[in-house]
Amino acid sequence: MTFASTWAELEPIGRNARTGGYRRYAWTDEDAALREWFTAAARARGLDVVVDRAGNQWAWWGDPDAAPGVVTGSHLDSVPDGGAFDGPLGVVSAFLALDALRARGFTPSRPIGVTNFGDEEGARFGVACAGSRIITGQLDADRARGLRDADGVPMAEAMTRAGHSPAALGRDEEALRRVGSYVELHVEQGRRLVDLGRPVAVGSSIWPHGRWRLDLTGEANHAGTTRLADRDDPMLRLAAVITAARQEAQARGCVATVGKVQVTPNGVNAIPSAVTAWLDARGSDEAAVRAVAAAVGGVGGGATEESFTGATAFDPALVARVAALLDDAPVFGTGAGHDAGTLATAGIPSVMLFVRNPTGVSHSPAEFAEQADCLAGVDALATVLADLAGAPGGPPQ
Amino acid sequence: MTFASTWAELEPIGRNARTGGYRRYAWTDEDAALREWFTAAARARGLDVVVDRAGNQWAWWGDPDAAPGVVTGSHLDSVPDGGAFDGPLGVVSAFLALDALRARGFTPSRPIGVTNFGDEEGARFGVACAGSRIITGQLDADRARGLRDADGVPMAEAMTRAGHSPAALGRDEEALRRVGSYVELHVEQGRRLVDLGRPVAVGSSIWPHGRWRLDLTGEANHAGTTRLADRDDPMLRLAAVITAARQEAQARGCVATVGKVQVTPNGVNAIPSAVTAWLDARGSDEAAVRAVAAAVGGVGGGATEESFTGATAFDPALVARVAALLDDAPVFGTGAGHDAGTLATAGIPSVMLFVRNPTGVSHSPAEFAEQADCLAGVDALATVLADLAGAPGGPPQ
Repeated sequence: MTFASTWAELEPIGRNARTGGYRRYAWTDEDAALREWFTAAARARGLDVVVDRAGNQWAWWGDPDAAPGVVTGSHLDSVPDGGAFDGPLGVVSAFLALDALRARGFTPSRPIGVTNFGDEEGARFGVACAGSRIITGQLDADRARGLRDADGVPMAEAMTRAGHSPAALGRDEEALRRVGSYVELHVEQGRRLVDLGRPVAVGSSIWPHGRWRLDLTGEANHAGTTRLADRDDPMLRLAAVITAARQEAQARGCVATVGKVQVTPNGVNAIPSAVTAWLDARGSDEAAVRAVAAAVGGVGGGATEESFTGATAFDPALVARVAALLDDAPVFGTGAGHDAGTLATAGIPSVMLFVRNPTGVSHSPAEFAEQADCLAGVDALATVLADLAGAPGGPPQ
Repeated sequence: MTFASTWAELEPIGRNARTGGYRRYAWTDEDAALREWFTAAARARGLDVVVDRAGNQWAWWGDPDAAPGVVTGSHLDSVPDGGAFDGPLGVVSAFLALDALRARGFTPSRPIGVTNFGDEEGARFGVACAGSRIITGQLDADRARGLRDADGVPMAEAMTRAGHSPAALGRDEEALRRVGSYVELHVEQGRRLVDLGRPVAVGSSIWPHGRWRLDLTGEANHAGTTRLADRDDPMLRLAAVITAARQEAQARGCVATVGKVQVTPNGVNAIPSAVTAWLDARGSDEAAVRAVAAAVGGVGGGATEESFTGATAFDPALVARVAALLDDAPVFGTGAGHDAGTLATAGIPSVMLFVRNPTGVSHSPAEFAEQADCLAGVDALATVLADLAGAPGGPPQ
């Protein structure tokens, strides 16, 4: 099975013909098709698939209870109209790295696992990394069951319809015990590797990340008859908030985005009574990220924190070891959340590999990686797995 | 029937308990209840109700085919979460002015009509003054039948469900022939009468008014991983457009509003691929209004004109006569569209009366007029009707 043929199997699942983007949401028919693909890919390699309490899939080479294993993988779901690479590249590369190890006659001294974490993007129920958060206890089972999609369907009902018992949700000690270390390969979401002229990097951390809601109030009025001086128009506050978010992020070395806006009543001839804007801010320095939000909140009349996650550092020894193995690959952090971050937070030594993205674009149909770079990623992953799952006297887990 | 008791009959129809605003949309159950109220109010005064080809209601005192009549009225529908006064005040005042004329023993030498124009706000099907535009031929019948509401229901189907035949739609010569002149009383949508310390004004014109759509494009990308320098974020363009709309309107003596915005995909963690904004601009000078739109379009990368209506002047002789009758009432134009404007465009001598609004707010549950001012409005309207429908040797129609 080549990279191209494996990729081709996945490509049609959940692709929207009009936008060219992917709509692969948790516990849908598309999700079921992706899970079937995973099971078939594992079976084709003689691996059995185990499903944990949250529905994450694990394919094991070797007995996962004999010793803590080396696990690699990613996710297969997508954001709305997302690209083909964010997630699937890590799962496909995991299977192909395993093929490469076998082709060279490698015999692991520890079990190697390939995993597909469910609901990483949180596109349907609003909570990212739901699969890994549930099994590590970072997302409460009752809260998860009650999360509702845009149609009001609770996650519990969606899981039941998809044939997975929501009663099973919860921290999964058995699944976690089997993971000695975790390596997640991912398409880069940025252009640092383009600038550096390298195909593969090592991820060292996930930046602090927060989301805030700004409730901009005003007074509803007639767009044709209300003098400018008599207006209290929250849309002007929105303009100030958008501008401040960019300026404050620039000044503090962060990124900040106003990506979601709701206008009430949203009529062409009505001065709005209210505008709600959401601010997403991230950066390597937590104090700077919080300062951006505070400054933008100051412009908008207050910002309500909806979530905040501090920096997640991957295991420093593991990061250094992997970078050295890969010809001193570049090492940097990322502003995106990943299941590797969830596992690192749960105390599992974790690390990421990033594969060059020529445009840097992600979460868009334009997301891309050259095949040569994908193959370099598979090669790098195989090198890392061989090292971590090598001779019994090898590196500590 | 007092003002208060008549007002109380209308008050509960279509009021939303949560917002306190009115949701009275064309061809709904609420609309039917309002039409029943109109018919009952006419019958209580011994007047029969005629319905024209577009479903507008006309109650006639005297034979409408004996001579061109003097018509007064307004509309009963509302914008989403609108106020109680915009529209209904004109219809209620029409009936009460008629009561006042009868109470003083007045005998009209011309028929007097009270009218309820349907679908003035256009809240459901997107075209304002639909009822008056259809009977004057300013809105094509086929286009009207095909207009769809937010649920995709065509106007033709909505009319059929409400018991009115959509096949009848079209220019209504009989209805128009009966209207010698038209007087519409309306709550002021602004605070000029507050500043002037007067309860009633005369409307002289409707300002030029245009709507433009700005399609702001950008590049969808990940909010956490895309460097600021690599972004093409249409939300920043939106901020510039909102700011420019206010600045350009201020500089040119117009009003301009961005009241409606659509963001794609509108995700908290996604740099949008596109933002669409709608600009509403009005002012007494057409060139200035067009200059505002051109300047804002320049900031946003182009503006597509969705509609433009030039200035509508009411009949100058009628305006002067009515102002003189009302103790030299203030005379000014308005930025809002009205059925009186549609009829004036169709060549019917028309004029408006505005009743003081203490806050100036309209299209909002906060819209208000003091009862004393409403009674002053009824009195002014009765004075105007007595003059226009007075002795056969009275004013020309």
